[in-house]
Amino acid sequence: MLRTHTCGELRIDHVGQTVTVCGWLQRSRDKGHMHWIDLRDRYGLTQLIFEEGKTDKALLEKSRLVGREFVLQATGKVIERISKNPNMPTGDIEILVTELEILNPAKLPPFLIEDATDGGDDLRMKYRYLDLRRTPVRQNLQLRHKMAQQTRSYLDGLNFIEVETPVLIKSTPEGARDFVVPSRMNPGEFYALPQSPQTFKQLLMVSGFDRYYQIVKCFRDEDLRADRQPEFTQIDCEMSFITQEDILNTFEGLVRHLFKNVKGMEIGEVSRMTYADAMKNYGSDKPDIRFGMTFVELNDIAKGKGFGVFDDAELVVGICAKGCADYTRKQVDELTEFVKRPQIGAKGLVYARYNTDGSLKSSVDKFYSEEDLKKWAEAFGAEKGDLILILSGEANKTRKALNELRLEMGNRLGLRKPDEYSVHWVVDFPLLEWSEEESRWFAMHHPFTSPKPEDIPLLDTDPGSVRANAYDMVINGVEVGGGSIRIFNRELQAKMFSMLGFSDEEARYQFGFLMEAFEYGAPPHGGIAFGFDRLCSLFGGADSIRDFIAFPKNNAGRDVMIDSPSIISEKQLDELSIKTNVK
Amino acid sequence: MLRTHTCGELRIDHVGQTVTVCGWLQRSRDKGHMHWIDLRDRYGLTQLIFEEGKTDKALLEKSRLVGREFVLQATGKVIERISKNPNMPTGDIEILVTELEILNPAKLPPFLIEDATDGGDDLRMKYRYLDLRRTPVRQNLQLRHKMAQQTRSYLDGLNFIEVETPVLIKSTPEGARDFVVPSRMNPGEFYALPQSPQTFKQLLMVSGFDRYYQIVKCFRDEDLRADRQPEFTQIDCEMSFITQEDILNTFEGLVRHLFKNVKGMEIGEVSRMTYADAMKNYGSDKPDIRFGMTFVELNDIAKGKGFGVFDDAELVVGICAKGCADYTRKQVDELTEFVKRPQIGAKGLVYARYNTDGSLKSSVDKFYSEEDLKKWAEAFGAEKGDLILILSGEANKTRKALNELRLEMGNRLGLRKPDEYSVHWVVDFPLLEWSEEESRWFAMHHPFTSPKPEDIPLLDTDPGSVRANAYDMVINGVEVGGGSIRIFNRELQAKMFSMLGFSDEEARYQFGFLMEAFEYGAPPHGGIAFGFDRLCSLFGGADSIRDFIAFPKNNAGRDVMIDSPSIISEKQLDELSIKTNVK
Repeated sequence: MLRTHTCGELRIDHVGQTVTVCGWLQRSRDKGHMHWIDLRDRYGLTQLIFEEGKTDKALLEKSRLVGREFVLQATGKVIERISKNPNMPTGDIEILVTELEILNPAKLPPFLIEDATDGGDDLRMKYRYLDLRRTPVRQNLQLRHKMAQQTRSYLDGLNFIEVETPVLIKSTPEGARDFVVPSRMNPGEFYALPQSPQTFKQLLMVSGFDRYYQIVKCFRDEDLRADRQPEFTQIDCEMSFITQEDILNTFEGLVRHLFKNVKGMEIGEVSRMTYADAMKNYGSDKPDIRFGMTFVELNDIAKGKGFGVFDDAELVVGICAKGCADYTRKQVDELTEFVKRPQIGAKGLVYARYNTDGSLKSSVDKFYSEEDLKKWAEAFGAEKGDLILILSGEANKTRKALNELRLEMGNRLGLRKPDEYSVHWVVDFPLLEWSEEESRWFAMHHPFTSPKPEDIPLLDTDPGSVRANAYDMVINGVEVGGGSIRIFNRELQAKMFSMLGFSDEEARYQFGFLMEAFEYGAPPHGGIAFGFDRLCSLFGGADSIRDFIAFPKNNAGRDVMIDSPSIISEKQLDELSIKTNVK
Repeated sequence: MLRTHTCGELRIDHVGQTVTVCGWLQRSRDKGHMHWIDLRDRYGLTQLIFEEGKTDKALLEKSRLVGREFVLQATGKVIERISKNPNMPTGDIEILVTELEILNPAKLPPFLIEDATDGGDDLRMKYRYLDLRRTPVRQNLQLRHKMAQQTRSYLDGLNFIEVETPVLIKSTPEGARDFVVPSRMNPGEFYALPQSPQTFKQLLMVSGFDRYYQIVKCFRDEDLRADRQPEFTQIDCEMSFITQEDILNTFEGLVRHLFKNVKGMEIGEVSRMTYADAMKNYGSDKPDIRFGMTFVELNDIAKGKGFGVFDDAELVVGICAKGCADYTRKQVDELTEFVKRPQIGAKGLVYARYNTDGSLKSSVDKFYSEEDLKKWAEAFGAEKGDLILILSGEANKTRKALNELRLEMGNRLGLRKPDEYSVHWVVDFPLLEWSEEESRWFAMHHPFTSPKPEDIPLLDTDPGSVRANAYDMVINGVEVGGGSIRIFNRELQAKMFSMLGFSDEEARYQFGFLMEAFEYGAPPHGGIAFGFDRLCSLFGGADSIRDFIAFPKNNAGRDVMIDSPSIISEKQLDELSIKTNVK
């Protein structure tokens, strides 16, 4: 090794030893006859000192020529510092350098390699390898490593076996758009990259693997939002001979284990909520339940008083914001503007203040007496000082809009603390959802999800009301994982494909192997997949997944560091028997 | 859970307990008033018993209707067996069944689900999910899981951090053919799938990650031999601030750890051999050193005796096969045929027997006296009873042919035992090799490999003699891993690209980001990659990697189970701005 110690290792006990360290120059200071260099590596910072009288003259000179981010190898004696730095693990010591080797010089980086950098997003993406030198970014990836380790440790302990499934698979029409790979050996044909190893993990259950997991890259060719990546990582799991209850217990155990072993936190009870309740009480299938402010429906008490907006609405529903009765007109207007944004789409906002003096005042006093408002307050369990916020209109749309308003209020009131976690399940999702656009049913989870046995008869009469054995795990309002108990019976699977508008032939062409597998002894099975990037970002207390991925792509799917994708040669295209339509 | 115990779990201590097990019917036997079923899961086999008088009549009847590979759930009381089976961990007990649920029936599998199956390769690939039920195949994947676990455990312990590098990267002209992925969002442009994460792991070193590893899928679009797969898995590693010596120590440590913790074996010393010695003594850069039979060159003593074949040869070289002097004429003829095969290409084989009576007899007695042969025997250290086998011709070709003959003799003499392991390094590979076809230099390892500092001046004068800081690990004649100390200096890297025939512009277009990274403070670094599939197959004592991959592809790159690759829709092609040339 070119070093005897790392830059995070030396303590007061090492004083007197001759050591060699390697790393990058973080910063240097000069004070007359003394020169200091802070040397950085992954493990920490160590102070090097060069001092007139003690340090060879040429060496002192050399030390002054070394710039930021130079790669250095320094040998010297560990000495006790005169002014110690209690904020640094190595702050008790410094190295009085006797030999200094410049292993590699460095141009001045295009942005500061400091915790708080001056680099913009684009520059940091282009020079990602420099951004990764910054401690917060590096720590994100160290967290990710620890998350993966602890995930494996938990699942290994429960007899899960990690099996690698193929990356070059087959394109399927259901779900998101596939990335495809032209096959040179099979001209005109294409592989697809997996959106998930779904069918393979089910086949592993048919094979008797019993408990499978994989931390695995998946791919979706979708238009990217800030928070999506074309390639992402899943913790993918499947179990046999289990019920939904077993899956929920096993995987809340996983998340409990991660919180405990990665963050040293106990998360308490993991509650469960039906999809129906989540929609009714929060207007979302992934409610943030770190705070209350649950929905209260007012149809019974708010209609029939002559206020047309409410009278004509399918649903009148509101939330109660604790202690917000003193919101100014301007603040309330902001909320009104917020709910009227096109992406939220409410027509307006009705409010009622429950003033601290006990009086009640609403934006619709023309239609509602103080007596009426009292009933509202009771319905909300409102207290003096609270502000009631009400939306109305078509039920689903209104709930969705109120969900956004609730989250906004949670943000404004500081109720959504990134270091406070609430973990819960949403269960009993609908099996199918209707697409107006394609005028057919879609699988809400995926086509392999089983209906609840008691709802199977409804498949023919009222498909929209069939509940699935499907579940999502939600942390702080973010869906971090989801799964289902699968269909393991050929006839039911065939029926499901036909409900989704597949012809027999299409179903056979796409999924024949799976349906055939079900005829050779498929066990009852189910599973779950966690979005690993997202889970890491939540654990890191961050909003974006990008900083938890070593080399992410931008919103146009480009890696601006390596400048990819790129054009390829005519020879390559010819070998693959393809042409591009682009000149 | 649908079971209280697995099929591998019940022992004599469980007698008297009521249990429920789930699994597949492995086989059943009927003997008058009794019926047995062996129930199988991943964990083992458990015997179920149904007995007239003790078992409900309808249940006994039902048990007789259950066929091979049906999925069953059985509840009953654990009882002690009358005739125990000491070869089965559960052989002391059986379950007297009181409830039997057929969870899923099964069609008769197309081949026997037994350790020794009657299924041919093609059938087993098509029904891979059934083949995976067979214990030996499942055990291969369990071995693989353990190998991955132990690899991670060793590297985690040494502060390596696992970082996921991207799968959608950029096509590069050097190396094997890339798989490419058309980009929908960037029409006319393509991603490539990585042949290895080489540049990314080097960038992680530039980022200061210090020690990186990843068990990662890589891709090469090459014509497939029996033993290659278009997607394969590497243990990919890189370290900073190290010398070649540190890498060799760290990774022979890994292999030592794997042998110890996966196979319970101590592997002893890991020896080192230069490439030059390997070629001279074994005619191979990956010699199998489980047995001797090293090459002996005879130019000095065999030339000039009037035997034109030797006299005109660049090299006369042979091996000594212990105890083979009594090979029959037929056996020797077989060896001659062997070396004359086109893929081996020798013109003929000369032999000399050192008979047990002390006499010496060769196939070229016309030219060589017994006195001459005595000198040969001395050169080989041959003893009475040995057979000397000699090839001659152009040096490199002759060595390669003799390598094949040596391995053949090793096989014939049973010296290549699959359960005996020898692990060693081959070091000091040439940096470059000349391609007659393209009449340019190629990087023997890859373009990022550093030359030995003392050989750098030779880059201009005698490139072929420049040695690289490159090393391969060889186990039992198989290259399981290889790596190098990398170039970390921009000028040297640019020089290397120019030696390989890249124009400045090409080098900048393909690897500009890496060369630029070298200007911002790159540390000395190096690494290694192990072929994980191959390593697993070696540990499993098998020749083919295919049975250590859950869902392998065939030699045409097809997954015959899911029938991939396949055609995709016109809509998909249009969205990707490509056309196929195939009607």
